[in-house]
This record gives sequence, structure tokens and C-alpha cells, in this order.
Amino acid sequence: MPEFKDALTKDTFGAAGRHSHPDDTVIEVRDLKIGGGELTVIAGPCSVESREHILKIAGEIKDAGACILRGGAFKPRTSPYNFQGLGEEGLHFLADAGKAFDMPVISEITGVSQIGLFGDVDIIQVGARNMQNFELLREVGRLGKPVLIKRGFSNTLRELIFAADYVMNEGNPNVILCERGIRTFETYTRNTLDLSAVPVLKKLTHLPVIVDPSHATGRSEFVEPMVLAAVAAGADGIMIEVHDDPAHSLTDGRQAIDPEAFRKLVSRAKAVKAALKEGK
Amino acid sequence: MPEFKDALTKDTFGAAGRHSHPDDTVIEVRDLKIGGGELTVIAGPCSVESREHILKIAGEIKDAGACILRGGAFKPRTSPYNFQGLGEEGLHFLADAGKAFDMPVISEITGVSQIGLFGDVDIIQVGARNMQNFELLREVGRLGKPVLIKRGFSNTLRELIFAADYVMNEGNPNVILCERGIRTFETYTRNTLDLSAVPVLKKLTHLPVIVDPSHATGRSEFVEPMVLAAVAAGADGIMIEVHDDPAHSLTDGRQAIDPEAFRKLVSRAKAVKAALKEGK
Amino acid sequence: MPEFKDALTKDTFGAAGRHSHPDDTVIEVRDLKIGGGELTVIAGPCSVESREHILKIAGEIKDAGACILRGGAFKPRTSPYNFQGLGEEGLHFLADAGKAFDMPVISEITGVSQIGLFGDVDIIQVGARNMQNFELLREVGRLGKPVLIKRGFSNTLRELIFAADYVMNEGNPNVILCERGIRTFETYTRNTLDLSAVPVLKKLTHLPVIVDPSHATGRSEFVEPMVLAAVAAGADGIMIEVHDDPAHSLTDGRQAIDPEAFRKLVSRAKAVKAALKEGK
Amino acid sequence: MPEFKDALTKDTFGAAGRHSHPDDTVIEVRDLKIGGGELTVIAGPCSVESREHILKIAGEIKDAGACILRGGAFKPRTSPYNFQGLGEEGLHFLADAGKAFDMPVISEITGVSQIGLFGDVDIIQVGARNMQNFELLREVGRLGKPVLIKRGFSNTLRELIFAADYVMNEGNPNVILCERGIRTFETYTRNTLDLSAVPVLKKLTHLPVIVDPSHATGRSEFVEPMVLAAVAAGADGIMIEVHDDPAHSLTDGRQAIDPEAFRKLVSRAKAVKAALKEGK
Repeated sequence: MPEFKDALTKDTFGAAGRHSHPDDTVIEVRDLKIGGGELTVIAGPCSVESREHILKIAGEIKDAGACILRGGAFKPRTSPYNFQGLGEEGLHFLADAGKAFDMPVISEITGVSQIGLFGDVDIIQVGARNMQNFELLREVGRLGKPVLIKRGFSNTLRELIFAADYVMNEGNPNVILCERGIRTFETYTRNTLDLSAVPVLKKLTHLPVIVDPSHATGRSEFVEPMVLAAVAAGADGIMIEVHDDPAHSLTDGRQAIDPEAFRKLVSRAKAVKAALKEGK
Repeated sequence: MPEFKDALTKDTFGAAGRHSHPDDTVIEVRDLKIGGGELTVIAGPCSVESREHILKIAGEIKDAGACILRGGAFKPRTSPYNFQGLGEEGLHFLADAGKAFDMPVISEITGVSQIGLFGDVDIIQVGARNMQNFELLREVGRLGKPVLIKRGFSNTLRELIFAADYVMNEGNPNVILCERGIRTFETYTRNTLDLSAVPVLKKLTHLPVIVDPSHATGRSEFVEPMVLAAVAAGADGIMIEVHDDPAHSLTDGRQAIDPEAFRKLVSRAKAVKAALKEGK
Repeated sequence: MPEFKDALTKDTFGAAGRHSHPDDTVIEVRDLKIGGGELTVIAGPCSVESREHILKIAGEIKDAGACILRGGAFKPRTSPYNFQGLGEEGLHFLADAGKAFDMPVISEITGVSQIGLFGDVDIIQVGARNMQNFELLREVGRLGKPVLIKRGFSNTLRELIFAADYVMNEGNPNVILCERGIRTFETYTRNTLDLSAVPVLKKLTHLPVIVDPSHATGRSEFVEPMVLAAVAAGADGIMIEVHDDPAHSLTDGRQAIDPEAFRKLVSRAKAVKAALKEGK
Repeated sequence: MPEFKDALTKDTFGAAGRHSHPDDTVIEVRDLKIGGGELTVIAGPCSVESREHILKIAGEIKDAGACILRGGAFKPRTSPYNFQGLGEEGLHFLADAGKAFDMPVISEITGVSQIGLFGDVDIIQVGARNMQNFELLREVGRLGKPVLIKRGFSNTLRELIFAADYVMNEGNPNVILCERGIRTFETYTRNTLDLSAVPVLKKLTHLPVIVDPSHATGRSEFVEPMVLAAVAAGADGIMIEVHDDPAHSLTDGRQAIDPEAFRKLVSRAKAVKAALKEGK
């Protein structure tokens, strides 16, 4: 194929750039590997709702094929009048559920003052609204543990990669990038999942790329097709909201799928992943 | 899964709406079927450049797995100073190449005054810039032959479905919808391919849905991953720009792939399609 | 002030570019001048509804300060099931009202097949959805009369100027540009009025620039502040939807103002215009 | 004028909503009033560059009509490799310049750890990237001093008002809102200034509204027309980047105007403001 000139040269980025690390980065969390070939399946409820609830869902999703448990304890909400999450207690419940089913856990941090509370959280998530909260990026960069950065809903991929550079500059190489939908004028879906982000990020960086179709589409019936598409596009993993009773979820029930739908989705996603290997 | 209320009710649309035709529409072009299970592979150069050229490419893509030949004769260009296509002569060359290799052909119409020239074109394409050219939609609706409508680059899916209604209202049920990328603030790709359009359109309408990743990404290296993602998302077909010498293409060479890359892409797309069936 | 390099060079555009015509173009319509210093006030209902109605409004807006009468006869509608305008009859009613009150009239053309019907229309409007309907642009370019081109709701200013070039290339120098709002993710207003378009277009081209705040905001209560802002930004004119009974308007009543509000608006707009001259 | 139903009801917002405080809020800073009729003119360099420099510019802009001095000490930069501001030292230089010319000063805070350093800063600015940094909003809400919140470049006005609610909920009623341009697909200007934000915010809230045309347009030649437009749209104030040598500014020189251009701009802005009063 012919060569064309590229606006982003090899020197644009720092440690996050592909030129500084030609091989794909593989991140280890306990005995799991993120990146490098296996599909990473992260699942769980939008919010941790109670100890019993997170334990119940953790068991169900583990059985259905999830390898990492998600659950929000600090929820960034547009309005101060909405449910803000269980906070510190929620993190404890999440960690307990992770231990009970031997799964690493991931949860979102929404401020630097919470850093001391995340000791039992295996992967720290920086959410879309904080993608350019540079103080927070630097602080999580000083911890050794993996950080998953979600693309801001109107940020460019260039800006996302620089967010990774903010973390890596502080000495933490364990960064995972996550596409979760961008704002457009389309209103039928909550946001527009930009799957071209997957091959673009794989080209420009060496970091694992995860796709979250739940927040992107905002509708449970589109989660499966977008998961399959994400896997086909080359994503290293997926992050899915699963709830045993979506209609009564405390937050974002419209986009959650139930454990039975999740089981089928994982099976089909693995079939697509396998087909990619065959076809090469 | 629980039921949620939907802003687009079943009566929003006319003939294009799923409620008016619960089964998937299958469109026949010569002995080909678009929709209904087989992957439709449309390929060819951005523009018809000469008789020899289109004949050469037609043979190569047919051999590599294409079933419909594309080629632009009337090119809608932002600037009046750019190459506007070979016009009527280009349509003749395209039709000849289609006959030589027994492939139906598709080409874009850019004005109602051209309708008489499209007699030998099997599928008429209405481009993104004309998606709300209602005069043109009505005129192609009066012809019996299949019409492929590309989503305007800042139109909603609701508007795209109404464009189909304009065509169908004139008595032509043979409408194919095509997602080709929307405008966003991301600049690394030419447009942003909105693959959630595929399941949304399959839910709201009964019409076949085709994805064009060449115009959407504007970069040849992202065509294959986005084709695989489109197939995984449930697309009925794909439309790909193929050129034997992309660097010297008269138009849009940056996004064209060569016949060898196309052959591999078709093979991998079929593997993904097959995996979807297995997983069900 | 220092000089900075500009991505749009002086040779980017053709006849529409400022470099090809350093002085501001002034367009004459009957004995009116558009551009060149006086504020052009275009007003009227969204749609021509009946002969009596357009005559009544014409008299009221003339009295309140309008100098050109607008009224849609061919309405481009997203859905084929919505009111499409009175068509040819509507143009007759509009022309009669213009004669009765000695005002030039402007109306939108939505297809090349209508050109023969626009003989009594003084200014032909090409709407936002047809800004890149190049066949239509060429056809109105072959007429001698003034053409007002509305910016497509997701087109760049560069693309708008090329649309003017399409018209001017056919020998018609009488082009007026119109900003009418672009699509964004903001939902409180119908579109987002891009007033920076005014100084940008005045810099890059020599053509008169009109602003339509009615379609842009979609809400009557914001029409006056946006008119005042448009005048302050340097617009040559404004186009306002006025209806004597907005709540019962056949189309777009939410954005129409009544004649009394229009009278005040014109008076305040002229005060702002005068202040700009003083301040220089 | 007729009444239409509104998606944002009177109970949507808390303390920031117009229904909770029908009169316009006037904020006092030393003996200045923001809101309530007089035009507030904030000016200064993008970044504080040195003690001498900020003192020089402060004198020049005060003489030309500015009443508040701006200057960035902590700069939020997309890339960690770019100049990040002078930090604490920059705040001292800014405070000294404010004292020397008896002007209140405003500067941006980019993290909660900096709060202790802002004792001598009269108005704390929360920048666009931190508009949904809820931890920071709560922390500045616990201080008594005025807070200016810039709209995030892809946030809706509804989200901006909720950001104000986050601050006010902590007991701080002194919130100023600032429109500074949103992201669109237009590339000629850096962002697109959304001036309809001014009347919308004045309708939905009781808080003063400031417009920053420097960041929005990103080009010095468009600053004056957009300032005049902002004033005509009803803005309570403007925030302008002024630099004595824009071509050598450490940051964002392309959008800065020099003191002489600023003097003319203030004079013209006041003429427009006066015209608005006359016309009522």
C-alpha cells in the first residue's frame, strides 16, 4: 500500500506513543493479562447498590464469562440533586465481592481526595468528565496500579493519548484506554460509539483499548451488536453494564443487560474473536 | 428484558417503518439478493477513470469476491474547480465493465436532469449531500429500480428513514440504506463511522443496510477493521473503494485499498459473518 | 497587529473570494441595495398560508420597517407526510403582496423543475438542505437574478463560499450569503447561531451577509437579542419570521414573532447599527 | 406572545435557577459590581509571563478601560510537554499588579490542591475542562469568594447551570457564568462562540453572564465584532486577552489583541451598550 503523510508525526506523543514502545503493552492485574490476545471482559452494575446486590451480580457474571468486576461507588452526576453513589462503603462492598469470586475490581475515582480509599481497587477508572482533569491524572500516575482512562465525550483521540501521557509521565506505565461514545447530533442513541477509535488508537499507541458500548448507546438492545463490532474492530476488551433487574437499577437501567443476555453476548463475542484469528 | 418507552413510536414512519413491513425486505438485482442473509460486497474505484481502467478493476474485484461494481461518473465536489467526473461517458464505461464480468453496477446520480442517462445502471445511488434533495428522491422514486440512499453527514437516522419514505411514497419499495460516516470534531479520520446506525436502522426499518467505511475513515489502513466491525454489527453489505494504484487515483486515493488487500478483507469479512451464525 | 499564516490562502476561492473583488459587493433589487451600509430587513411568515394572510402580514411588516417580504411556497420538510407548502399558487400570492406594498419578495426554490415558476420572485433562496445541491446551484446561476444561499446546518464556511462559487461560475454575480444556525449537541435552541460566520465571511468574501435568527434559535423570545448581536457583528441584513398569530402558524410557529415585537426589534436593531458607525 | 411548553421546567434547577431568585444577581468584588447594568470588562494576558510584564499590561489595560485584570498562572494544557504556567509565583505577580493599579484580579484554578494559593485572587475561574470536575466545584463552593465558571466546550447550557448549582449548594451564591465557545465541525475558528447562550442563560438563571471571544474565535481579528455582538446579545461583561506583543506571547498569541486595539474595542462596546438602553 502507498505511504501518505500524516498530521500526527511519530514525535507528537511521549511515552504513550507507538514509536516509544513498538510492541503492544500487556498489563497484568493479579494473574490476568489485559492486551496481548485474550479478550478482557469487564462487567457489573453501573452503581454498587448494596453488599448483597454486588455479591449476587458478581457470582452471576463470573459464571457467564466475566473476568473483571466493575461497580461505581463515586458517581459523577450532572445534577447535584441526583444519587451520588455509596462512596467509601460502596468500595468496600465491591472489594468484598471481588474477593469472594476471585475477580479483580475496577471503580471510578472522581477526585484526588479519594485516592486513599482505592487501596483495594485493582484498576482505577478516570471517567469521561475527568479526562482532562490534569491534577487527577498526575495523582493516579503516582500510584503504581493500572489506570483506565475513558475518552471524554467530545475529546479527540489526540487529546486522549495526551491524557495517557500525563499519567505515564509520573512513572506509571499501566494505562488502558477506553472508547465510550462521543457527543453528536444523533439523538436516538445516548452517544455515538466511535469504533474507528480502536484501530486509530492501536496504530498511534501501544496501550490496550477497551470499548464500553453500554454508555455509548444508552440502550440495552444495541449492546450486543456493538460489542461484536468492537471485537471485530480489534478491541482488547469490553466493559458491559449488567444488572439482574435493569428496570429497577438505581442508575442507567435503560442500558443494562441481564445476566442471561450477558452470557450469550460473551459466547458470541468469543466466536467473533476466534474468527478474526482464523481469517488472518 | 424490560420494556422502555421509545421516542420514535411505531407510527412515526410510513412505508419505510418496520411496523408497516415486519419481515426484512430482500431486494433483487438481476440474480443477486440484497438483504436476507448473504453479505453483499460492492466494490470499485471512487471514479470511473477510463474504459480500460474500469474493465481492469472490475475483473480484479470480481475475482476477489465482489458481487456489485461501483464507480462514480457524476462526482459531487465541494469546489467547482475540482474534477467533476466523466459524466455520461463514465456511465457507459461502467455499464460495459458490468456486462463484461456479469456484475450489476451502482453509480451516483447528482441531479434530476441525469435520470435519462441511468438506464443501464442497476442501482441508483443518492449521495450524502443529496439525502434531503426531496425533488431527486421523488424522481428516483418514480423509477422501478433499486435506490441506495447514503446518510447525510450530519443527518439523524430519523431523517434518513424519512428520505426512504420520500422514495417509497412514489411507489418504489426497493430502497437500500447506507451509513457512510458523520461529521464530528474528531479530525484524525475524515468522518466518524456510526456503526450503531446498523442495529438502530434494522430495528426501526425493514430495509437492507450497507456500510461504506472508505468515505467514513478516509484512510485505507482503517478500512478492513471497520468492515469487520460493520459485518459484526449486522450490516447486510459493505461498499469499498478499490483502486489498483491508490496513490494515482483521480479522486480520494487516500482511502482506496488495492485488489490484494481487498481479497483478504472479503475473506475475513466472511469469516466474521459465519461466526455470527454459529454463535446464535 | 502581527500577521499569522492562514490555512485558506487567497487563491482558495474563485469569484466569491475577497481577493478577486476587494470592494464589498452591493446587490440591487428594484431600488433597494443589499450590502454597502444600510441594514436590509427581510420579514414575513414561514409559509404563505393564503392570499389574505400574506397581504395582511405584508402591510404590517412594511409599516414596521421591513423592506423585503419573505414567504415559503415550496417547503422542504423532513417528512413527506408534513405540509409541503402551497406551491405555485403560494408564489402568486406572495408576488401579489409584494406588488401591493411595493416590496421585493424572496422565496425558497427546492428543485430545478420549479425554476420557471420563479419569474415574479425577486430573490431566489437556496435553502440549507440544498446548499450542496450542485445542479440547483448551477441552474440558479444561469438566471440573472439575486440568489440567497443559506449555510447548510453542518457545512463549513469554506463549503458555503464554494457554493457561491458554483452560482457565480455560471455568470451570476448577485449572491447573498445567509447564516441560519448549525447543528450542535445543544438542545435548548433548535440550532446554534454561529455569529462568528459574519466577520469570517466578510473577511474571506466580498458578498453581503444576512443572518436568520428565527430558524437558528427556534424560539421567539431569543430572536431579538440574536438580531441585535448579528447587527453588532457586522451583518448586512436580517431575515425574520413574523406571523400575526404565531400559535396558529401552519409551520414553525414557535419561532415567529408578532408584528408589534417586530416593530420594536427593527427600532432597536437600527439603534445598534447607528452606534457602530459612531464608535468607529 | 403565545406561551409554549418548555422541556426545562421551573423546578429543574436549584439555587441557580431563575425561579429561586427572580431578580438578577449582582456580585460585588471590592467596589465593583458584576451584573446589574454596567458592562464588566475583564482583560489581561493569557498567561502571567513575568512581574514586569503583568505590571506593564495591567497599566495599559486599566488606562484603556478594563476594570478587572486576568492572567493565567496554572495553565491546563492538552499536552504535558507544553508550558504549564508560572504557578504560585505567577499568582503573586498577578496580585501585585492588581494592587498596583487597584484592580480586582481573576485567575484559573486547575486543582483542589491549589486552593490555599488563591487567597489574594478576587475571582476564581473554573475552566472549561473542569466544568464537570465536581470535586473542584464543591471546594470552591466552600470559599466565600466569587467563582467564574466557563462552559465546557461540549457541554450543554443545562449542564453549565447544574455546575453552578454544585457551587451554590455549598453555600456560595457568587457565581458568574461564562460562554467561551463550543466544539463544532467548523475549523476556521478555533471554537464556535454560542451567543444564544447569553439570552438562554439570562432566562433560565439569575446569574451574571460573561463572554470570552478570544478563546472562542482563536483569532484576534474576530475579537472586536464578537465582543460587540456579545454586548448586543445582553452579556453582562466580556473577557479579553490583551498582550503588548501578541506574536511573542508564551501562549495563545494568535488570539490576543494589543492595548491600542483594546482601547477602541472598549469604546465601541460601550457605544453598543448605550444604544441598547436608548432603544428600549
